[in-house]
Amino acid sequence: MKILVLHGPNLNLLGERQTDIYGKKTLEEINSQLAQYASIQDIQIIAFQSNHEGELIDKIQEMRHSANGMLINPAGFAHTSVALYDSLLSYNKPIVEVHITQPFHRETMRHPLITARAAQGYVAGMGWKSYVYGLTALIDMILAK
Amino acid sequence: MKILVLHGPNLNLLGERQTDIYGKKTLEEINSQLAQYASIQDIQIIAFQSNHEGELIDKIQEMRHSANGMLINPAGFAHTSVALYDSLLSYNKPIVEVHITQPFHRETMRHPLITARAAQGYVAGMGWKSYVYGLTALIDMILAK
Amino acid sequence: MKILVLHGPNLNLLGERQTDIYGKKTLEEINSQLAQYASIQDIQIIAFQSNHEGELIDKIQEMRHSANGMLINPAGFAHTSVALYDSLLSYNKPIVEVHITQPFHRETMRHPLITARAAQGYVAGMGWKSYVYGLTALIDMILAK
Amino acid sequence: MKILVLHGPNLNLLGERQTDIYGKKTLEEINSQLAQYASIQDIQIIAFQSNHEGELIDKIQEMRHSANGMLINPAGFAHTSVALYDSLLSYNKPIVEVHITQPFHRETMRHPLITARAAQGYVAGMGWKSYVYGLTALIDMILAK
Amino acid sequence: MKILVLHGPNLNLLGERQTDIYGKKTLEEINSQLAQYASIQDIQIIAFQSNHEGELIDKIQEMRHSANGMLINPAGFAHTSVALYDSLLSYNKPIVEVHITQPFHRETMRHPLITARAAQGYVAGMGWKSYVYGLTALIDMILAK
Amino acid sequence: MKILVLHGPNLNLLGERQTDIYGKKTLEEINSQLAQYASIQDIQIIAFQSNHEGELIDKIQEMRHSANGMLINPAGFAHTSVALYDSLLSYNKPIVEVHITQPFHRETMRHPLITARAAQGYVAGMGWKSYVYGLTALIDMILAK
Amino acid sequence: MKILVLHGPNLNLLGERQTDIYGKKTLEEINSQLAQYASIQDIQIIAFQSNHEGELIDKIQEMRHSANGMLINPAGFAHTSVALYDSLLSYNKPIVEVHITQPFHRETMRHPLITARAAQGYVAGMGWKSYVYGLTALIDMILAK
Amino acid sequence: MKILVLHGPNLNLLGERQTDIYGKKTLEEINSQLAQYASIQDIQIIAFQSNHEGELIDKIQEMRHSANGMLINPAGFAHTSVALYDSLLSYNKPIVEVHITQPFHRETMRHPLITARAAQGYVAGMGWKSYVYGLTALIDMILAK
Amino acid sequence: MKILVLHGPNLNLLGERQTDIYGKKTLEEINSQLAQYASIQDIQIIAFQSNHEGELIDKIQEMRHSANGMLINPAGFAHTSVALYDSLLSYNKPIVEVHITQPFHRETMRHPLITARAAQGYVAGMGWKSYVYGLTALIDMILAK
Amino acid sequence: MKILVLHGPNLNLLGERQTDIYGKKTLEEINSQLAQYASIQDIQIIAFQSNHEGELIDKIQEMRHSANGMLINPAGFAHTSVALYDSLLSYNKPIVEVHITQPFHRETMRHPLITARAAQGYVAGMGWKSYVYGLTALIDMILAK
Amino acid sequence: MKILVLHGPNLNLLGERQTDIYGKKTLEEINSQLAQYASIQDIQIIAFQSNHEGELIDKIQEMRHSANGMLINPAGFAHTSVALYDSLLSYNKPIVEVHITQPFHRETMRHPLITARAAQGYVAGMGWKSYVYGLTALIDMILAK
Amino acid sequence: MKILVLHGPNLNLLGERQTDIYGKKTLEEINSQLAQYASIQDIQIIAFQSNHEGELIDKIQEMRHSANGMLINPAGFAHTSVALYDSLLSYNKPIVEVHITQPFHRETMRHPLITARAAQGYVAGMGWKSYVYGLTALIDMILAK
Repeated sequence: MKILVLHGPNLNLLGERQTDIYGKKTLEEINSQLAQYASIQDIQIIAFQSNHEGELIDKIQEMRHSANGMLINPAGFAHTSVALYDSLLSYNKPIVEVHITQPFHRETMRHPLITARAAQGYVAGMGWKSYVYGLTALIDMILAK
Repeated sequence: MKILVLHGPNLNLLGERQTDIYGKKTLEEINSQLAQYASIQDIQIIAFQSNHEGELIDKIQEMRHSANGMLINPAGFAHTSVALYDSLLSYNKPIVEVHITQPFHRETMRHPLITARAAQGYVAGMGWKSYVYGLTALIDMILAK
Repeated sequence: MKILVLHGPNLNLLGERQTDIYGKKTLEEINSQLAQYASIQDIQIIAFQSNHEGELIDKIQEMRHSANGMLINPAGFAHTSVALYDSLLSYNKPIVEVHITQPFHRETMRHPLITARAAQGYVAGMGWKSYVYGLTALIDMILAK
Repeated sequence: MKILVLHGPNLNLLGERQTDIYGKKTLEEINSQLAQYASIQDIQIIAFQSNHEGELIDKIQEMRHSANGMLINPAGFAHTSVALYDSLLSYNKPIVEVHITQPFHRETMRHPLITARAAQGYVAGMGWKSYVYGLTALIDMILAK
Repeated sequence: MKILVLHGPNLNLLGERQTDIYGKKTLEEINSQLAQYASIQDIQIIAFQSNHEGELIDKIQEMRHSANGMLINPAGFAHTSVALYDSLLSYNKPIVEVHITQPFHRETMRHPLITARAAQGYVAGMGWKSYVYGLTALIDMILAK
Repeated sequence: MKILVLHGPNLNLLGERQTDIYGKKTLEEINSQLAQYASIQDIQIIAFQSNHEGELIDKIQEMRHSANGMLINPAGFAHTSVALYDSLLSYNKPIVEVHITQPFHRETMRHPLITARAAQGYVAGMGWKSYVYGLTALIDMILAK
Repeated sequence: MKILVLHGPNLNLLGERQTDIYGKKTLEEINSQLAQYASIQDIQIIAFQSNHEGELIDKIQEMRHSANGMLINPAGFAHTSVALYDSLLSYNKPIVEVHITQPFHRETMRHPLITARAAQGYVAGMGWKSYVYGLTALIDMILAK
Repeated sequence: MKILVLHGPNLNLLGERQTDIYGKKTLEEINSQLAQYASIQDIQIIAFQSNHEGELIDKIQEMRHSANGMLINPAGFAHTSVALYDSLLSYNKPIVEVHITQPFHRETMRHPLITARAAQGYVAGMGWKSYVYGLTALIDMILAK
Repeated sequence: MKILVLHGPNLNLLGERQTDIYGKKTLEEINSQLAQYASIQDIQIIAFQSNHEGELIDKIQEMRHSANGMLINPAGFAHTSVALYDSLLSYNKPIVEVHITQPFHRETMRHPLITARAAQGYVAGMGWKSYVYGLTALIDMILAK
Repeated sequence: MKILVLHGPNLNLLGERQTDIYGKKTLEEINSQLAQYASIQDIQIIAFQSNHEGELIDKIQEMRHSANGMLINPAGFAHTSVALYDSLLSYNKPIVEVHITQPFHRETMRHPLITARAAQGYVAGMGWKSYVYGLTALIDMILAK
Repeated sequence: MKILVLHGPNLNLLGERQTDIYGKKTLEEINSQLAQYASIQDIQIIAFQSNHEGELIDKIQEMRHSANGMLINPAGFAHTSVALYDSLLSYNKPIVEVHITQPFHRETMRHPLITARAAQGYVAGMGWKSYVYGLTALIDMILAK
Repeated sequence: MKILVLHGPNLNLLGERQTDIYGKKTLEEINSQLAQYASIQDIQIIAFQSNHEGELIDKIQEMRHSANGMLINPAGFAHTSVALYDSLLSYNKPIVEVHITQPFHRETMRHPLITARAAQGYVAGMGWKSYVYGLTALIDMILAK
């Protein structure tokens, strides 16, 4: 079993930029913790980060047959990208969207949630651990199918 | 250690009403699963459901010294109650808000999220298991303090 | 056969307060006329008034198996209560919402109609007799089932 | 005593078009039932349907002295016609507006209610029987004058 | 020289309906005063009233070569009719729109002014004399050409 | 096979009014070209223009059994008429809406598209040839049934 | 009899600035024509222009007992000044507001009409002659009192 | 003479919660100061706090004959409760609404002021002393009657 | 100790204009009562009224070192003036804004409250006595410093 | 003669994903049919699909001298991309925008049409054949130049 | 060559009020630095500050023939004054608007930019040096003419 | 010292496309002028243009340690890209945003300014020279640090 873990724009700077908001864990550390957690249940994590909306869509399409579910933190694209939303809609397996912060606590430009409408589950506001809870939920969803 | 688990209006009918939307677990079963999960970490669950906004606020105030964190599914009050929001604001410990469904997938009257602005964490859309992921997150938050 | 007749906040003052707007019939008189009308068809009226949103929801839940239909004047809650709306949604029998006045003729805060979205029928603007026409319609709906 | 019963655009197709939404009664059957009901109280029904906003206004003006009240289902014009609203405003006798469906349950273009602001009574959502309840109410209003 | 004077829906009831708002002059009297005024300058008035948007458009088209200008009180259509606006746009001579009342003082549904965007001049709020001032202005415009 | 071609208000002036916007073809010429094109496939064109919303609705109802599809340019009614929209909804065969210009390039009052919500196909902005492409599409739709 | 003629900001540049929009008449010429016209009926014109909102209000207050009516072109203040509106409200005699252009044809910042809500009459779009028609109307109003 | 002093949800925690915003006075201390102040003028204070909207309405109704005026801090209900607003409307004596903070300085959810529309006086932003100024004003109003 | 009392546009007409809304006290009488009240506590009142936004700002700047607090009724400027708001922001001492009426009970153009965002206290709706309560509060604030 | 055919994000999955909405034709099949159709008139089709907004812009720029017109289905970018809109604006030859579905029938996030404002023609709702009608129109436009 | 430098309300307090936001330079110092910079190119600076909208308009009109360009910081008037905007429109030479701060970073009441629509250039957010960059740009514009 | 100069989508066509709006300078010429200007102060310009939002973000990240400030013209992304905004937020050095035109003078889709909220300085409307003034300001900011 495989799970696609997608990280949107600027998340490659986790642990380095604005650590008061986003925390001190690097993306590599997060990915490694997710991989470790998943490996216990014999699940492989395919982690991918890009600042390019198109590359995220390409990756979703590429993995649409091989991955059994998707954990996505669309970052800034969560609020603006109909294209990414469309690619989630065409993905027929469980999707959980996660956010490190609570978008509702921040600027109004972050209030519209476009991609979340295509996700079954949504986890936000709990720092890098949002990924962990999201992954747990996603695995349960996949297994429950 | 104690955790307050609050259930808002109509959640006492879980497992009975609109099961296609809210699932087949009863509130009692959910509470009992949460208690069991928490007991492993020696945490006591204080579960309370009410259809009365005032009773929920009373309970939050009553438990504000004894409970170490709060897991709340405000149901319909999530979208309308400034009073409940105020009582969350005056609660100085970690709060996680959970929803069985994704409010964004439903009627527009469910789109404003008032109470969520006072919660650190937010979990939605994963059926009764939203409670479980929310509880896990809450316990981590409390322990991390 | 039983019908639940619910009266929302401040309706206990009917006949006493703002009689130029709401008319001179007291709530007791209205209930008694509805009961008399219903009794002709061997239907029992369970009338209940409360200024508490939670008590109205409790009553709806309590009667959900025993009453064959509901006639509701949610008064001020009609425009604000998602919780009451949710409890109407979980009630699987015919519902008719009535108003003594026409909300559209009044302050803009009365223009959103939240609970009415869960009612099959809607009668407004005809003074206390809105209850009578609503009851007639409700009985027809129940019998037509 | 005479009552004008006005049917707006497309209602001549009742019983034939979209019967899942509008029911199976034809307009002729409805008119005949209303006439029969009214005749018991020695009231004559003048029924008129048109797809032309102008013809409805003409009819209202023509009958403004001879009819003692008006029962109107403005159909699509309910949401758009200031002209029809103006002609209701200039009609000095009781008016009840009826709808077969609940406009609030449907497309947002049906949410503005323009003509209803000029009607004393409003009945909606109860199929063709909305006419019956509306007529009952209208007759009561006329007699109460 | 000819001037088309168009009166929109319900204006045929001037002097009879809502005289506190619209005044006591009948449409016939207004037309006759306008004709008299115009005749001094050897101008013929072609007055036309209809409750039918289509008839007003037909008349505008019919007179588009023979009339040298248009004085129009679109009444309720002023706020809703793109079709009437289009027919004004296709009329290549001076147009003055008049209103008996001030739409800004009234219900918000009367605030959008659609047809006025196609008129060179606009006169409102001065009772039936709005027609007189509008006609004076229109004649000046025509003569100034 | 028959196709109903409906032209809304002011389109009878095509080729004469505002030719910089609407082009130089007259309505007669357009109808004749459509008829000629259709005749190749043995299809008869029933063309009808009116400035009266009610006449357009009457015609749609009249032809609802005999015409196999409808090509409609609702002109100004496209943006305002719920009544026309309702009559399209009750028409059970393919509908294509066409516009000579692009409403999005013009005044904001032309931006709401009400009737288009009831049409399967939509063609705009290509001058009188919008009719031709729309007709081609409509015939394909009918034949594909 | 006296009439106060008020000109708002930038109108002192009439005839000089943006003559394609505002025309070639100077303010002095307009005032002189109004005075001449009024003198025929033995009415004195008190003309006053200011770029200062406060000076316009001062003048209105100063003249509130001596002037029998007011003709005002508030220019830019028409769309923004609640203070000027308040001073019109406290003026108990007839007021006619005039505009050289049609505000509805221009930038959206000119669409709100605040002062016009306190004026009985409104004339717009007919160049400097808007003043003339406005004055005629105002004199009629005063005489009709 | 009696005055009803109503405190809305969460105000029982005054002096304890968010003291940087709401100050250090407890509700008991405030009530006692109000009572002392009122007693000078031989006025009795009936103070009542509740987190339940329904209890506040019940209390208003209960005291509607015996209390000569009402001082109310509706807290969160100020922004959401049409039911409470209705009960103020049906109360025929002077009402002053007070707020400890200035709602306009805070979250946008606190900007709509529903109950204030039924109060004659409004005092906000001056800490617990808002109650004192409000009470002074209320007593003056009552005595002025 | 000195307090600046600022009165915005049209308040010089208090007691004369619209007395049903604003009451019968003149501005002079109000100022004299405020002065008398303040003198008891050895405070001097510097009262200033202007219809000119600029003069109000000039006065605020002029008094910014000598006055210990400001009582302001910005009248119409309360809803429109960012410039006045800025000058309040730059004033580093207590400010209380007062209104004779309740802006929320009146036209929507009076609903935005711009200057109030820079005031610590806000008193409205209690006739000329709003000044008295505002002054009391302001003196308390100054003394509490 | 060459025509650029651009396909936006996710269209490479046509025929595979959500076939109930988008139909069963693959992109390759569509391209091949368009090429075949164009070849009859000796026109070459340059088809290009990308999930990358930037690649679509690059392609438009690259082909801006060699292609005589553009047929574009921007998919999700139609509703969000000002950058793509800008690149269409800078393309000086005919552009036709096509959509497989009718955006107006779908989620509100698809209602804003940004790129369409830069296209001369617009065809929507007719499945993959929208491309065919769009191409026909585009060729006519190019030939008409 | 002369350049008019206009400073809007409250800017005379620069260097004294809110120095954390507006910096420590006084207006005099800024004017003197601008004069010095301009004198190098033989340009004379006419600096003028006022808290009165009317005085700013008067000055613009007075200098409209003698000044070759205008540098304006309208301060609070930037967001509210149509009158000032109109006077900029009637000024036929280059205009650059400058702001010390970025209005977009501040309260929403500062987001509408009315006067900026009449300026060719706009510089904001760079403290008092915004004036310097604006002046440089303005001189270039004038010389480029 | 190094400065990153970023050019958003379509700016590579400067000097070629829509020269009436964007001017005749090519991007190369602009870059070369900026480089020349900067070299005087011994500053190196790193210029980069891309039509890809992702490449712009990549470049910002790549240069975040080596460049001392950023001059950015985000073009169309200025109005839509939260992702680009986020990458500016995570850049800890001075940023100045420039625009060749004034977005406020153009289509409403260009009115929201998302990226500008993360820039300290903003320069717009002065053609290609906006870059020059922006660069001057940026260098001053860097040196002032």
